[in-house]
Order: sequence, then structure tokens, then C-alpha cells
Amino acid sequence: MRENPVRTAWAEGRGAITAWLTIANSYNAEIHAHDGFDAITVDVQHGVVSFQQAYEMMQAITTGSPAPIVRVPWNDPASIMKMLDGGAYGIVCPMINTREECEKFVGACRYAPTGYRSFGPARGVLHGGPDYFDHANDTIVTLAMIETRSALDNLEEIVKVDGLDSVYIGPNDLSISLGHGPAPEPKAKEVIEAVDHIYKVSKANGVRVGIHCPSGESTRRRLAQGYDFIAISNDARLISAINKKELADARG
Amino acid sequence: MRENPVRTAWAEGRGAITAWLTIANSYNAEIHAHDGFDAITVDVQHGVVSFQQAYEMMQAITTGSPAPIVRVPWNDPASIMKMLDGGAYGIVCPMINTREECEKFVGACRYAPTGYRSFGPARGVLHGGPDYFDHANDTIVTLAMIETRSALDNLEEIVKVDGLDSVYIGPNDLSISLGHGPAPEPKAKEVIEAVDHIYKVSKANGVRVGIHCPSGESTRRRLAQGYDFIAISNDARLISAINKKELADARG
Amino acid sequence: MRENPVRTAWAEGRGAITAWLTIANSYNAEIHAHDGFDAITVDVQHGVVSFQQAYEMMQAITTGSPAPIVRVPWNDPASIMKMLDGGAYGIVCPMINTREECEKFVGACRYAPTGYRSFGPARGVLHGGPDYFDHANDTIVTLAMIETRSALDNLEEIVKVDGLDSVYIGPNDLSISLGHGPAPEPKAKEVIEAVDHIYKVSKANGVRVGIHCPSGESTRRRLAQGYDFIAISNDARLISAINKKELADARG
Amino acid sequence: MRENPVRTAWAEGRGAITAWLTIANSYNAEIHAHDGFDAITVDVQHGVVSFQQAYEMMQAITTGSPAPIVRVPWNDPASIMKMLDGGAYGIVCPMINTREECEKFVGACRYAPTGYRSFGPARGVLHGGPDYFDHANDTIVTLAMIETRSALDNLEEIVKVDGLDSVYIGPNDLSISLGHGPAPEPKAKEVIEAVDHIYKVSKANGVRVGIHCPSGESTRRRLAQGYDFIAISNDARLISAINKKELADARG
Amino acid sequence: MRENPVRTAWAEGRGAITAWLTIANSYNAEIHAHDGFDAITVDVQHGVVSFQQAYEMMQAITTGSPAPIVRVPWNDPASIMKMLDGGAYGIVCPMINTREECEKFVGACRYAPTGYRSFGPARGVLHGGPDYFDHANDTIVTLAMIETRSALDNLEEIVKVDGLDSVYIGPNDLSISLGHGPAPEPKAKEVIEAVDHIYKVSKANGVRVGIHCPSGESTRRRLAQGYDFIAISNDARLISAINKKELADARG
Amino acid sequence: MRENPVRTAWAEGRGAITAWLTIANSYNAEIHAHDGFDAITVDVQHGVVSFQQAYEMMQAITTGSPAPIVRVPWNDPASIMKMLDGGAYGIVCPMINTREECEKFVGACRYAPTGYRSFGPARGVLHGGPDYFDHANDTIVTLAMIETRSALDNLEEIVKVDGLDSVYIGPNDLSISLGHGPAPEPKAKEVIEAVDHIYKVSKANGVRVGIHCPSGESTRRRLAQGYDFIAISNDARLISAINKKELADARG
Repeated sequence: MRENPVRTAWAEGRGAITAWLTIANSYNAEIHAHDGFDAITVDVQHGVVSFQQAYEMMQAITTGSPAPIVRVPWNDPASIMKMLDGGAYGIVCPMINTREECEKFVGACRYAPTGYRSFGPARGVLHGGPDYFDHANDTIVTLAMIETRSALDNLEEIVKVDGLDSVYIGPNDLSISLGHGPAPEPKAKEVIEAVDHIYKVSKANGVRVGIHCPSGESTRRRLAQGYDFIAISNDARLISAINKKELADARG
Repeated sequence: MRENPVRTAWAEGRGAITAWLTIANSYNAEIHAHDGFDAITVDVQHGVVSFQQAYEMMQAITTGSPAPIVRVPWNDPASIMKMLDGGAYGIVCPMINTREECEKFVGACRYAPTGYRSFGPARGVLHGGPDYFDHANDTIVTLAMIETRSALDNLEEIVKVDGLDSVYIGPNDLSISLGHGPAPEPKAKEVIEAVDHIYKVSKANGVRVGIHCPSGESTRRRLAQGYDFIAISNDARLISAINKKELADARG
Repeated sequence: MRENPVRTAWAEGRGAITAWLTIANSYNAEIHAHDGFDAITVDVQHGVVSFQQAYEMMQAITTGSPAPIVRVPWNDPASIMKMLDGGAYGIVCPMINTREECEKFVGACRYAPTGYRSFGPARGVLHGGPDYFDHANDTIVTLAMIETRSALDNLEEIVKVDGLDSVYIGPNDLSISLGHGPAPEPKAKEVIEAVDHIYKVSKANGVRVGIHCPSGESTRRRLAQGYDFIAISNDARLISAINKKELADARG
Repeated sequence: MRENPVRTAWAEGRGAITAWLTIANSYNAEIHAHDGFDAITVDVQHGVVSFQQAYEMMQAITTGSPAPIVRVPWNDPASIMKMLDGGAYGIVCPMINTREECEKFVGACRYAPTGYRSFGPARGVLHGGPDYFDHANDTIVTLAMIETRSALDNLEEIVKVDGLDSVYIGPNDLSISLGHGPAPEPKAKEVIEAVDHIYKVSKANGVRVGIHCPSGESTRRRLAQGYDFIAISNDARLISAINKKELADARG
Repeated sequence: MRENPVRTAWAEGRGAITAWLTIANSYNAEIHAHDGFDAITVDVQHGVVSFQQAYEMMQAITTGSPAPIVRVPWNDPASIMKMLDGGAYGIVCPMINTREECEKFVGACRYAPTGYRSFGPARGVLHGGPDYFDHANDTIVTLAMIETRSALDNLEEIVKVDGLDSVYIGPNDLSISLGHGPAPEPKAKEVIEAVDHIYKVSKANGVRVGIHCPSGESTRRRLAQGYDFIAISNDARLISAINKKELADARG
Repeated sequence: MRENPVRTAWAEGRGAITAWLTIANSYNAEIHAHDGFDAITVDVQHGVVSFQQAYEMMQAITTGSPAPIVRVPWNDPASIMKMLDGGAYGIVCPMINTREECEKFVGACRYAPTGYRSFGPARGVLHGGPDYFDHANDTIVTLAMIETRSALDNLEEIVKVDGLDSVYIGPNDLSISLGHGPAPEPKAKEVIEAVDHIYKVSKANGVRVGIHCPSGESTRRRLAQGYDFIAISNDARLISAINKKELADARG
């Protein structure tokens, strides 16, 4: 089975860096697939990407080497299994608040006996190879988003779920849930402490930690701290930022 | 934040009139966006519209002034939040039968602390403006469909749910649930009385009332009665009706 | 081979009536396919319909009985042949101004020896049947648009082209070309006379005459005059008209 | 209402044979619609087919006579009802493990009073006819997938659910669930016995039995045994198999 | 009719700056529509954008204020007129090498009597307004690409064509045509002189001059020189550039 | 630049075998990309494939090793250049009847000075690599279809065009043009002799010869004769053939 560059990075002691795609277009995905990321995450939750487009984007990602990852819209087995059948090598699942929710999520990503994923990896074999079934459970990564007060309350239990590879911190939602406004880079003391707490508890339980960062610079700091899976902003914000910079350069 | 023409109508003491789109096409949506409606509802439940097309239709609606509203296929947070992130200014949610279901629905439409909507309004800011987060909770309208006997039984509890703006009566399903066939304009006494009952209980609890009407004429009667949100038939029925009329004119 | 309802109407001494689709959607096309038209014309010239959507619309038309007709964007063999391969039973070709242009158009619609259409009727056989090749040349109808002053000048020559079934009058462009503004129903005396002239010259040469009409009522008059192929307005105008009428009914 | 060829086959004492489509394309669906199958199943679970494409494929199926069937991604009312509104004449529902799950599934396929399907059969009437509501409950077939150990444990209860027409055996998942690898044709004794057990218990309770087969030859054996609904492999596997055979023929 | 921001810039004595879109996605277009450009050019020539997607992108551009411009794949009336009917406010036409080619191009953009554009501005009126026909000829801008040796030879004749608003210099193709490799910023002396020559001859004939620039900084220099219509790189190059910069920031 | 497997086969003294895709779907293309063909030809002429879908199919082909080839709808530079920019490694051009037409075709596939292809290989670089411009002229293959009586008349001149790699024989059209019906495997003596004549004249002029074959067996015979580029039937025919065989196996 084709290896998972996220697991490769981890094996090499590096954090994996992912692009984060909200623009539903396979050419855009193909461009990103050749820009040097370890992974490319297709955001089917908040971006305006449909399932059909996510498949086409995963085909485009397969033309390069990054791992295709999908953030599903919700913790439901149908979405998760469809994206895995479409070739996803990892699932970021939003709003995991309890141990039961985490078990439901992780189980949907694994074939029996460790999970309840249904068999039929249509594009999975095309991306992964003919020995897909034998290695899928060990290759695919599971990332549970910790982004609410109630997830904080249940954190110790969540990170003990068998088969969970990593938590993924959503700073915006975590900040909102703790009573502050959205903040891509946590500013409020309470939020900063919550992030540190998630980091420590997860690592102490042998679970990796991912986080969404607003820039490459911020990513570098998180990598230095030991974070394992980091998204740099997203395609829509980056293109808009560079547009504004180039326009300013042009207009003086 | 761009204002919501549905709330504007309500503030002016008028019922809002919506087009109801079942044809999955952004040009069709753009035509409707310039025909004078207060709102345009994209039907992702019974029409054959996919999520991807619903986004494209909302982009087309943004070229005009009506509020983009979506009827989601079911009361699940993933659908609701995706449509809101896509720019919807209101959600019509089918089959709300209990207080718990209504709370689940309304909560999905509101950011914390009043709800549990996840943050990431990709197209929401493009339609609404950069101050989207500050005003979204107050701008977006929530409409719970009351269309079963069991919803009637739990009506008093449903309409007391905080954050519910309006009920929306589906005459066809209500009629079927009460043992009659589908009827776009209620005919059976029991159904007529049920509709009146919904109207009174809702209004008594400060909740607005919407209803689906088969024609402009029927809409006028409902407006006169005090209804607040009315759909005139749907695009597929209207185009078919005018086709048949014009063909009859042509063939004599 | 499945018969062509346009030819059937002609054989019965009736003019054929066509819907005119500018909304690129197969569900819309399927609705029209069941509304009683003799033909459904997909407008790939002025509507915003792409080739891909035109195919899907023709599949939808095949679920009913009307003839699928396509107005191609221009007199080029690639467009014409692609649409025929997709199952079109007739081609409306814009801007035919000379005998040579008409021969180029008609030849693209016919297999050798009468034309130069390339063989490979992918969807053609699915719509028409396995004996497609044997009858395609006799089944498919060719309609040349006469809509410029220069076409008027060359009319006698154009209508003598072998294999041309009908001319099709575009009142808007004809009116513009004669120095008047667009007019869906000719008003200027010069334009009215031009229309009558086209009618007479065509009929005198055994060529049928089609025209675009703004309404069913106008269509009835043209049918009574002997016109053979008439489009009633288009889907976008009709839906907009009925929307405005229903809104007026609603608002009083 | 247009009859359901699956029920026709059953009335004639034959098992129905279905194509199984995983390639999301309406032209491919239209080709299959003319190849002689009793039914064509669009796989929205494991194939890479989206809802939007499933609609377009059902339009293409309507150009021929086979019954359009859909395997939904999961047992959720939204997916089931959308596909029925899109014209599906049968639903294959994965992972039915308990009586409650089966009731939830079957209820979503039936209008009140026997179920809770919401009314609005947009394409349903176009495929089925204007009397759709009167006959839909009796025309549409429900097939519950039995593919886990826990389904085996609850089998007697599942097959007693009112309105369940058939079970459908998924050999791959059943085999995985029983501790063996995926096997399109059951080989392990335990799996073979489980299949026989499902067959006997279902038939004893008046419920029909379907199964997925890897080839026409295997299908013939199952038909002889009395199976009622059989899929022959799927389009992706068949096209790949014939490609490899033709290439071998070519290269010698 | 809605004004054309390109003409507005020109009236104000400024050069217009355009984004250049090669990623076929309406959400990407909508983001650009709110980033401050005077125009957004959809590249249907070298990008992988289809006609259907170009329409959807123009709908998205209409949600903001920039002028929607299209670079068509070739100088053919069908492409040009379809894009104008779709709402384009300007056409960039590649490979204009002779006076005749320029006349063919410009004529396709203008209604009679100044041109031969066919009437039917489906989305044109939705973007431009109901008085579209009266002002279209004066509002829409025509830009002829000068990018070959043969265009240089015929330049004096080309820029004298009535109705041509601007030339547009494609440095890459011009450089290749003059025997050098592609160069987004002309480096070879011969190419630099050719660019200057085009600038002078055009301006001397009252024709504006546009050019493709690789960056905002380069754009500023061209604006200072007096250029009238400048594209800053393209979306694919910009997103790739910022990806590489952010990754470098992240990895140190 | 990524090598062209068609040229590799030729360099190894083998004929290249191509799949021929008429089903517009990227998953289908991806399946074919892993089935062992030297090339995969996307038929944009007679299949129902649009430009947009052709791009997506080429992305899917890039996940495997076959050369992506496109049969364009007609000999026009816009179609040819768009497909090359989309990553095509070869163009099959229909209906080449004269030396001038062949020069127009070949020139559109080559950058100056040997041709007039415009620069902007959007997906070309993603498929081919960053040194695309330097090697594109030598890597891309050009195949001119010889399929009419008039092409036969001008054959000696056509095959002398510089830069033409291969002719490609379309047996169906050739047979029709010579007064016989369509015949995927030439049967009429006149057609057989014409095919042999094309083979000899081309080879004598150093031009390779391709032909469309109905089966692997027929392909083997052509390979043995020395043919250089052979398509085995097409996906639609193959899937239909295997469907019918499997159904026959099933029904006995």
C-alpha cells in the first residue's frame, strides 16, 4: 500500500504540514499537490466543497505525493466512509465532545474487528494499491477535533480511545466556546491555557496533537513546540492575502 | 452585516414572500433573484438540488437582494451548518416533532453561547460582510416545519424553544399525517383546524407563522390573515403551469 | 428508428410547437418533456447552456416524447455533429447568410453521400434506436436561421439548398439588422414585410418556415398563417412572467 | 404508476438481476438501461457517486425500462427520501443490525400511515406518473443489507418488520465481520453457513433474499437456488476485467 | 446599464488592474470579486476553465463590483458572443495578426450596425440591467492580443480598426514568436523594443495598451509608464508562490 | 519532462495500444489508467465528453502511467490548444483531407518556430514537469485521421507535412465515404484496399499508422502487420458487451 506521508513525517520525528483547501476545484488541488506539503486537507465542513468535488480533488492530489486528508462535515459514518472509499488517508472529525463520539468516529475509520467500516474502497485501491484492505487500518490517520468546553471536560477519556491517532485543535471554535470571539491565533489567556492543556494531556496519553495556524511563521513556532499536524491557514485566505499585497504593490 | 429582507419585512409589519426553487440551476436562481421576492428558498429536501448546486444558487441570489433561505433535507447539524456557511440567511427544517428536535435545530443555527454552530462561514462573510460573526445569530431566521400529528401534540413545547423565529406549515405532509391525501391547499376540516391551531398557538407564544401556498391568490389570503412567511408554489410547478397555459393558447 | 415528432406534425399538416430552454438543467428539461410540446429546443447559442449540460438535457427529454432540438452557437461542424451524436433530432443554425453557409450547415447534418457528417452517434443510437444510421439522414430536421439583411439578399439561393428542411426566423436579430431595435414580435413595417417575404419565398421553394413567438397567443396566429415550427418564448422569460403575475396576485 | 420491473420479475416467479453502477455518469447509466437488466442499482455508498449524479443517472435509467434502485450511504431518512423523490423504485440500505434500524429504514420509504416519508416526489412523478402517491408504498421495494454478526444475531426480529420486502446479503462485509477477509464469493465455511441461514430464515418469514455475485455464472447458481435480487459484480470491475482480457488478446 | 469599472478607471485617468483566473471555481471568483480589483478576467484560453464554469464565475463576480472580462480561446464569434451573453464586460482575444482578424473580433462584440453580434443577452441583462441593448456597444471593451511577429508587421493596420479599445500584450507568446523562450517579463532586447513599439503605435492611434505582468511591483512600473489594463500574474501562480513562501517560513 | 509512453513503445519497436473513452467520468478514466494501456484516448468528438470533463479525466490519467491523448471534435486551434494545455500528450484530429488542413493541425500542436501554438500550459506542466516548454514539441504526438475519399486523393501530400507523427484510420467513416455503411472492421474490398494503401503510403513517407479496432483479437493482427497506434473498441461498447455476456451467463 502506498505509504502515508503523514505517518512518514511522524516516523521521522517531524510534524506534518498540510494545505487546507476550501476552494472546490481539482486543478487548484493539483497545484497544491505539487507545492511541497506533506498532506492536503480537503475541507468538506466549512468550505463550500461537495462530496463529488472532494473526490475529484483527491484524484488530483493522487497525481502528487501528499496525503489526501478530509475534514468531514460531521461525525457520521456515511460521510467518513465515503471519503475513505474515495481515497482519503486521514479524517479530521469536528466536534468530538465525548468518549462515545470518539469511538463512533474512530470505529468508522477501521475495518472489523477494530472498527465497523463497511468494505468497498472504490478509489481507495486506486490511490493505495491492491493490498489496501490489509494495511488500511494501519495507514489511515484519525484526527479528532477538540474545540468545545465539553470536549475539554472529557479530554482524558477522549484521548484514551483505541485507534485515535491525534487530536486537532480548532482555535476559533474553542475560543468561541470559552466565551471569546473567533481567534485563529489564541489570544485570551483562558484559551491559551486550554490549548496547552490539550497538548499535555494528549501527549501524556500517547496521542499526537494537531492545530490550525494562521501562517507559516506561526506554524514554525508550533512545530518547535512539538505539534504533529499543522494546517497553514487555508487557500481562500492565502489567495486573498496575496491579492491584497500585490494590489498594494501595484497601486503604491 | 447585510440585512435580512425577511426580518426587514417583519419589521415593517409585512409577511415575507419567498420563491421556492427545486430546479438546481444558478441561472434560474439569478432570474428569480431579480423578480421581486423578499426571499428565495432553495429546496434541498424534496427538490433534486445537491449541496454543490445550492451553493452556486446562493451565489446567484447574492447578485440580487432577496434573502437566500435553504430547506435542508433533515434536522442534522452537518446540513444546516454547511448551508449557513454557504451564505444562507434562514433555514427551513422539516419534520420538527418535539421540543428536543427543535432545540437541536435552532442550536445548530446559532454560535455559542446560545447554540453550538461551528465557526467557519466561508461564503457567509462574502454574502453578509466582514462583521458576520457579530450579527449572524440575530440575522439568520429559523423556521421549524410543523407537519405531523406528533408535532401537533408537542406544539406548545416546540414553540417555546428559545431562538425559534417561526414555524412553517407543510400542508401536504400535515394532511397525509392526519389521514388525508396530499393537499397543497388544506380542504379537510381536520386539516384546516390544525392549521388554525398552529397559527394561534404560535402567535400566542410570540413565534411567527409561515405556510406553503399553491398560488399568489392563496398567498394574498394568508397575508391578510397575518401569516409571516409564504412560499408561492415552486418553480417546477409554475413553469409547468405556464407551459400548459401557453400551449392551450397556441392550440386553441 | 424512433420517429421525429416534428416530422410527424408536418405529416399531419400541423405546425410543430417547441419549448425553448435557456436554463441549463436536466430536471427542468424533464419537466418540459412531459408538458405536451412537439419538440424541446435546447438553446446553446444565447442561453447559458454548455455542451455537457445539453447532453444531460437531451437525456431528460428522451424520458418523454418531444423531439430534442438544439440551437448551436454557430455554423461550425464540430458543434453540430456533437449535438447530433448526443441525440439531437434537429439543428437550428444561427446566421445563415449565404448559399455556401447553408450547404456547410446542411452537409454537417447528413452522412455521405449527401453530406459529410462523421460517424459515431454515441447517444444517437440510445435515443433513436439501433437502425440509426439507416434513417438518420431522413429523420433529422435542419433549420437555417434567416436573421440578417444579407440573408434576405441571398434568400432565393439559400432556400434552394438540398436537404434544408426549414428556415427559422429570428425576429430580434432581423429587426436589429434592418436598423430597428430588438423586437420579439415584429412591429416595424420593414421587418413585417421581410418576415412575409421570407415566408413566401421559402414556401414557394418547398421549404418550411419557423419563427420565434413571444406567447401562445402569437403562436396561434402564426400557426393559422401556415408556419411550421414555432417556439413559444423561452423558459427564463416564462418563469419570470409567471413569478411577476403571482407576486402581483399576492401583493394585491 | 409505471410498474416496478423488480416486482414484475417476482410476480413471474423469477429473480431480478441488477446492474451495479459505481461510475458516476449518466451516459454510462443510459447504456446500462438498454442492456437488458431488470434493475439498475446506483451505488451511493461505496462508489464515488454523489447525490447530484445519482439524479442524473436516474434520469438516464428512465429512458429505458429497468427499475432505478439506489444503495444509500447509510440508514438515514434524508438520503433515503431524497433518492425516492429523485425517482428510485427501491432502496438498498447498508448495515441493518437491529429491528429498530430496520423499522427506521422501512418507515422512511413509506408514506403515512405505514411510514413517515415526507411528501414531495419531485422526480418521482416524472418517472412514476401522476398517480404516484396512491401507489408508491406498494411499488417501491425495500432491501435491508444483512452483513454483520450482530445482524445475524437479530435476524429473526429484523425479517419480521412490516414492509420489508427483501434482505440483501453483502458477502464482503459479512465475511469481514465474521473474522475472514473480504470475499465476493463466500469461501469460509462459517460464512457459507451464515448465508444459508439468512436465506432460510428470511424465506421462512416471507421475506425475499438478494445477494451480490461476482459474475453471471455465479448469478445463475443463485437464481437456481431461489434468490430474488442479484447484482452481477459492478461496472468498474467489469470494465476493468474486459480491458485486461482484450489487452491480453491484443498482446498475445 | 451598470457601468464598466474598466471604462471608469480610464475616465479617471488610471490604468485598470485585473485579476486573472485560471482556477475554474465560482467561490474562488467570488473571493477575488471582493479583493479590490477593477476587473476580473476569466481565462478560457490557457486555464482549464470551461464555458459552463465561466458562467458560474461571472455570476460570482456580479456579487462584487469588478468588471467581468473573459479571455476567449480563439477569435471565433461563437465563443465571443456566448461569453458576452453570459455577462462579460470585455473580451481579450488571442492571436490577432491582421486587420481582418481584428475586424472579425471587434464585430462579434458589437450589435449592428457597427458589428454583427447576435441578440439574446441571457445573463447580460441580469448583470448589466434592462437597458442592456442600448448601451452594450459602448460599455463592453475589446482587447486584441498582439503576440506574434506577424501581428507586429500588421500593427498599424490592426490598431486602426474601428471599435477596438485596446491592444493587450502577451509577453510570453511575443517572446516565443520572436525566437526567445517564454518570458513573463520581457528580457531580450528585441522583445523589449517590440513592446515599446506596440505601446507607441497604439497610443498614437488612440488605442489603449494592456499587458500581462508577473507581479504587483512590475504592474506599478507599467502603470507609471501609462499602461491602461494590467493583469497581475494569475491565481494559480500566486497561490503556488504564497504556498511556497509559507512553507519556507514554517520549515525554517 | 515526463516521457510519452506512446513514443516509448515506438522506440521499443512496438505499436502502442490505447483505451478509448466515451464515458465522461474521471473515476472511469482512473480505472483505465491502471489497466495496462500505453495510452488512454479521451474522445471529445463522438463521445459525449465536454472540455471540462476531459480535463478531469486527464487528471485521473495522470495518477497512472498511460499517455493522455485527446480526439478533438474538429480541426480548430482552440480545441487543440486547450486540450494540450490540459496535459494531453497527443491529439487525434478528425477529417484531415488536405495538406493545408494537416499543416493547420500540426502547427497548432507545436510552439514557434515550428508551429503557432500559444503559450500557457496550465496543466501541461503539472503532468509533464517544469521543463515542459523545452520538450513539448518533441514529446507530443500528432495523429491525423484519414477517413474520406478526398483524404485518399491527397494522401501523398498530407503525409509529407512536417511534424506529422502518424495517420489514424477511422474505418467507419472511411467506409461510409467510399459508399459502404459503417464497418468497424473493413469488409468491402474497396475499403480494405484503401486501408492498405494508406498504410503503405504513410510508412513509405516515414509516417506511422494507427487504426481503430473492434477487439483485442483484431488489434493483435494489426500489431503483427506493423500498425503503430491502435484503439481497442471503446469503453461504452466494451461495458455493454460484457453486460450482455454476463446476463446471458446468468439467465442461461
